[in-house]
Amino acid sequence: MTTTEITVTGMTCAHCVASVSEEIAGIAGVESVDVVLETGAVTITSVTPLDPSDLESAVTEAGYALA
Amino acid sequence: MTTTEITVTGMTCAHCVASVSEEIAGIAGVESVDVVLETGAVTITSVTPLDPSDLESAVTEAGYALA
Repeated sequence: MTTTEITVTGMTCAHCVASVSEEIAGIAGVESVDVVLETGAVTITSVTPLDPSDLESAVTEAGYALA
Repeated sequence: MTTTEITVTGMTCAHCVASVSEEIAGIAGVESVDVVLETGAVTITSVTPLDPSDLESAVTEAGYALA
């Protein structure tokens, strides 16, 4: 199991958190996603290391950006 | 056709606007809902005058409050 930490900017409410979580959870191999709205900290656990470009795509798809 | 104006507090992003719009649009007789995120102004057109308590319930159900 691998843990990845990223920071996402632009989230303002629980809906934003849900959008980001859903997109990241859709990446193959992702087991869990934990988002802290106040800081933008997102912790992802996955069965194998994630491709950073997949993470960036998921965050962008949700309508937000990586810090 | 009747136009009703309310102010909703707590909306921070487009998801919030969508949630409030959807709940209000679900009230019987509502024809259109226009929400301005920056001010919280919500303008509703309906075939007959709306019951204020139905509007308050819809906003509360969406997770927000009337000003």
